[in-house]
Amino acid sequence: MRVLIIGASGLVGRALTNALIDTPKLQGESIEQLLLLDQAVTSYPNLDWVKAYTGDVSDTALLRRILADGIDVVFHLASVPGGLAEQDYDLGYRVNLQGTLELLNQLQQQVHCPTLIYTSSIAVYGVDLPQSMDEDYLPHPQLSYGAHKLMVETLIRDLSRRGDINGQALRLPGIVARPSQASGLKSAFMSDLMHALAEGHSYECPVSADATAWWMSVKCCVDNLLHATELNPQTQHSIWQLPILHLSIRQVISALCHVYDQDPALVSFNPDTNLEALFGQYPPIMTSRAEQAGFMHDVDAITLVTRALQPI
Amino acid sequence: MRVLIIGASGLVGRALTNALIDTPKLQGESIEQLLLLDQAVTSYPNLDWVKAYTGDVSDTALLRRILADGIDVVFHLASVPGGLAEQDYDLGYRVNLQGTLELLNQLQQQVHCPTLIYTSSIAVYGVDLPQSMDEDYLPHPQLSYGAHKLMVETLIRDLSRRGDINGQALRLPGIVARPSQASGLKSAFMSDLMHALAEGHSYECPVSADATAWWMSVKCCVDNLLHATELNPQTQHSIWQLPILHLSIRQVISALCHVYDQDPALVSFNPDTNLEALFGQYPPIMTSRAEQAGFMHDVDAITLVTRALQPI
Repeated sequence: MRVLIIGASGLVGRALTNALIDTPKLQGESIEQLLLLDQAVTSYPNLDWVKAYTGDVSDTALLRRILADGIDVVFHLASVPGGLAEQDYDLGYRVNLQGTLELLNQLQQQVHCPTLIYTSSIAVYGVDLPQSMDEDYLPHPQLSYGAHKLMVETLIRDLSRRGDINGQALRLPGIVARPSQASGLKSAFMSDLMHALAEGHSYECPVSADATAWWMSVKCCVDNLLHATELNPQTQHSIWQLPILHLSIRQVISALCHVYDQDPALVSFNPDTNLEALFGQYPPIMTSRAEQAGFMHDVDAITLVTRALQPI
Repeated sequence: MRVLIIGASGLVGRALTNALIDTPKLQGESIEQLLLLDQAVTSYPNLDWVKAYTGDVSDTALLRRILADGIDVVFHLASVPGGLAEQDYDLGYRVNLQGTLELLNQLQQQVHCPTLIYTSSIAVYGVDLPQSMDEDYLPHPQLSYGAHKLMVETLIRDLSRRGDINGQALRLPGIVARPSQASGLKSAFMSDLMHALAEGHSYECPVSADATAWWMSVKCCVDNLLHATELNPQTQHSIWQLPILHLSIRQVISALCHVYDQDPALVSFNPDTNLEALFGQYPPIMTSRAEQAGFMHDVDAITLVTRALQPI
């Protein structure tokens, strides 16, 4: 089978690429070709069955070339991150919405119904969330990034209903730990806190200790992406809120200090009202449908922070 | 001010055109130019301030020409109806989604933030609805038509949040009475029943007498569209479920027989499973938010059937 990863150079993309190179099997079949697409694809092993393409999802002609020989499974992980997409609306629109809609059009035209795993985001939900939530909560995105994700989810469900694709949209929480660098992700502080404490550096946290967020390690995320390819398109939903760990910053700091033997006093707090509203007020969420379908969270805070800082 | 009606030749479009020609005022200002766009615009009075364009919303160049001198209020009523869009996916995609997204892009580029009133549809909700619903029910469309409407709603809300447009998406129920003709609308039976009974013809109803639907007269619909232009974009939501009359086919037949002095025995029943599931199982819906914002339904069944068959 032929498998394509769009956004192969991102944190999740690299971990997924490694997982598929380690175990080149999906849906009970061997992977004969693994195709990687990103704006720059560098760090992958030189294997004759792995091929890299440079470009982005909004390059229609490139996509058509990649998909010309047919495709069985596509992981679409690429997006302009939320902070950047909010500032540069046209860029976010072109990549996160228009390019992705074009990808869906091209997948719809495949002779054999392909599987598409799409990383949506909890950014679909917006702010002012209720005290507790479940999988039927009505999203009202507060960023264009989340609005575009929600639109793509809707089209994926429609094309799956029509039987044109087997699409699964997974709403990811904050994935940790991303590399410490300006990534345009508004939730970058979730990872920055981890790197700082693990390395014993002081850190000024832009949300309060009581801020609560939804967390997932990159390893757990990849396990869920792989699991999604195995779902039966006939009996399943197409839009999934992944199970998450609902943890306060205080709980994460405590787990980090326990695992990496550090002093919580390394962290000071200087909450930013906007960040706190967007990323610090997530309530618990019930995800029984996703759990029943076999999706997983990271078990507990100790496992999360341990996995989060392991090399991928 | 300059006002554009896209879909001006449809049932709602003609009624809205007539209303604006009768009273050429919106948002406290006089209408200096009324622009009508549809695939064929014929039946409008020859007035120097009313101008018709032939084309559809997916004609980007035409749209750009129409909008070149600026626009204050756009009513976007045009769509490929649900039944047709389900069969001819590419046509529905091009008009209902792609053309509409392009319209939004062009409105976003206007110097002055324009008002956009968009007719969405209760087709966003899908099937298997709960026993009672409210405005926060999570939509899961079962037709591509509804999926595309839901996607457009999401983008309208996002552009309104950004302050680029003042957009209001109104979810319309079955609008009655449409002309008796194959329109590609799956809900055409709601109107066909009315015409038949009012004229004393027998009618074979494709849903059961107990089937319940959501009804609105074209007059009430136009009143709501006009009202939507007056909403304050700062304090309001952008997506509205209009208040509706929740009536069974039996109740509508009874009102028709009362108003037009006919015999209920003119109607026989031959329910179609698919139509019954799509259009015959609507539960009551609470629309307190929309009512508080000043939107209205048709008061009662007698008023509905009376208004529905009045010339517009």
